Amino acid sequence: MQAGPVSDMLQGRQLSLARLITLVEQDHPEVPEVMRLIQPHLGKAYRVGITGPPGAGKSSLVDRITTVLRSERLTVAIVAADPTSPFSGGAVLGDRIRMQQHCLDEGVFIRSMATRGSLGGLPRTARNVIKLLDAFGKDYVLVETVGVGQNEMDVMEHVDTVVVVLVPEAGDTIQTMKAGLLEIADILVVNKADRPGADGMVAELEAMLQMYPRQSWWKVPVISTQALNNVGVDLLYEKVVAHRRAMEETGRLTEKRREQRKKEFLETVEQNITRKLLGLIGSNGELSSYLSRVADGEIDPYSAAKEVLGSQTIIAQWSHELSDGTNE
Amino acid sequence: MQAGPVSDMLQGRQLSLARLITLVEQDHPEVPEVMRLIQPHLGKAYRVGITGPPGAGKSSLVDRITTVLRSERLTVAIVAADPTSPFSGGAVLGDRIRMQQHCLDEGVFIRSMATRGSLGGLPRTARNVIKLLDAFGKDYVLVETVGVGQNEMDVMEHVDTVVVVLVPEAGDTIQTMKAGLLEIADILVVNKADRPGADGMVAELEAMLQMYPRQSWWKVPVISTQALNNVGVDLLYEKVVAHRRAMEETGRLTEKRREQRKKEFLETVEQNITRKLLGLIGSNGELSSYLSRVADGEIDPYSAAKEVLGSQTIIAQWSHELSDGTNE
Repeated sequence: MQAGPVSDMLQGRQLSLARLITLVEQDHPEVPEVMRLIQPHLGKAYRVGITGPPGAGKSSLVDRITTVLRSERLTVAIVAADPTSPFSGGAVLGDRIRMQQHCLDEGVFIRSMATRGSLGGLPRTARNVIKLLDAFGKDYVLVETVGVGQNEMDVMEHVDTVVVVLVPEAGDTIQTMKAGLLEIADILVVNKADRPGADGMVAELEAMLQMYPRQSWWKVPVISTQALNNVGVDLLYEKVVAHRRAMEETGRLTEKRREQRKKEFLETVEQNITRKLLGLIGSNGELSSYLSRVADGEIDPYSAAKEVLGSQTIIAQWSHELSDGTNE
Repeated sequence: MQAGPVSDMLQGRQLSLARLITLVEQDHPEVPEVMRLIQPHLGKAYRVGITGPPGAGKSSLVDRITTVLRSERLTVAIVAADPTSPFSGGAVLGDRIRMQQHCLDEGVFIRSMATRGSLGGLPRTARNVIKLLDAFGKDYVLVETVGVGQNEMDVMEHVDTVVVVLVPEAGDTIQTMKAGLLEIADILVVNKADRPGADGMVAELEAMLQMYPRQSWWKVPVISTQALNNVGVDLLYEKVVAHRRAMEETGRLTEKRREQRKKEFLETVEQNITRKLLGLIGSNGELSSYLSRVADGEIDPYSAAKEVLGSQTIIAQWSHELSDGTNE
């Protein structure tokens, strides 16, 4: 039924794209069908994640990289899942004005995402939004998330190159390591590099990377930038392109996408099963009675789960529901 | 089989408690059995969550509240799921020294939790750790998490009173609102209240709460504290006790625990089903073949999921596995 909006979107209608993204954010039952329809149109966009602590200047960097990409005549989509990002509404006035430059550019699509209350979970929602933008035909999808929190960081599993942005501040290196940011970085950026301590931080990060080298086929570079003064952004873009080439030449991009598809498949199966289970609560008296006994504390949740899964009648009704052809 | 460690723990052996917590953190297959065994011993502990942005002084407040609770001869457990917390290892030296006071106190149990890479997901791990501490017989369980990130905030669903700690800094009120912290707060604390802007922030928060009152039975108080100087901590404790009384008298504590048990039951059923599904990949050729076709991009993940759930042979083997009596 979403064939209309989907084909409109595939033909370049931004309004249809925006509506489909809203469906994804609402975890609408038609999302699987939408994803099925866009599948043949996937794989063109290159996905770059930009993450780091709040205040590191991620949005300014995204803004600057977008300008570089546009000057190369590449189209761009920006997804911001960061409550402090100007793209998702956390801007001071100056940011907003600067952003408008891209807002008026037809080649740039900007979308913010709620980090809390995302119905299907933030990483899954982000993945599906990225896929829509890919199908829409964007050359680059830039995904900005704040690098704090498990869900926010898991979003980075759905991009091809991860850029971790830091600022020279006491203790920041240690915090970064502890938050696991160093482990996921393909490129490290020390932004606001005109601040004191920037050179020391670059040296410190490089030493750390030498101590714990991650892979043989790619040496994680450490770059100094000043997004506000537009310093170092070209170099950052070069490194993104270099990492992309390394990913492609070593076959890692293909492998990563294979793994992502497998994961998506298993998650979808699990999700359907779970929905059917919840749907059964209304119609299966035995399951409902377990639920109220658990609520009353008459039986512990784990024993009840074990009994439910051992119940012939519940499992029979369930597998009947699963295979009745109305699966999404 | 965990009956030994569980009964040791129930008799007050801290070492057994620590081992059981490690099992929970590793998402060990015996966790359901452990949870079943401790079920009759639950419900004594009162659970207070302390959350807020990094650097708000949450750990110092936890430390001070612990001192107050101990002076009332109440036993305390501290769970820190916060990479910046001194309790979970993010301390500067001063914090560590201050903490040792409680570390040497038999009536205080301190445990840190990894916020990333928690195998069963942070909120579920935290819930089970809290249950263990409850069964162990602690009067109060204090749960500290950083108030950024969906998983970290979801931990707060498993406590009875949520204390949100803020500091007087420009824009902090807005960030707090956007992060959803205001919505979950039962008590609001402006810590480091000797800093400029503290009174203004208290007034601002109070105005905001008046504009959006949450419930009729409890008026969210806004308190100024200076944890480092031990100012305002007694008042905070009074408010916690007042909220607890309100929760108990209105029957809301009972209702909240009922809902928690139901959710735990449904999650456990889902989790078991998912495990069985993953176990099937090795032995069911049809499922394995779907998996590689999805990886190769021959079929999209959503259509494959639909076909799998419509397959009589897969569903039959699955329901057989589910009801074969070896469910956890």
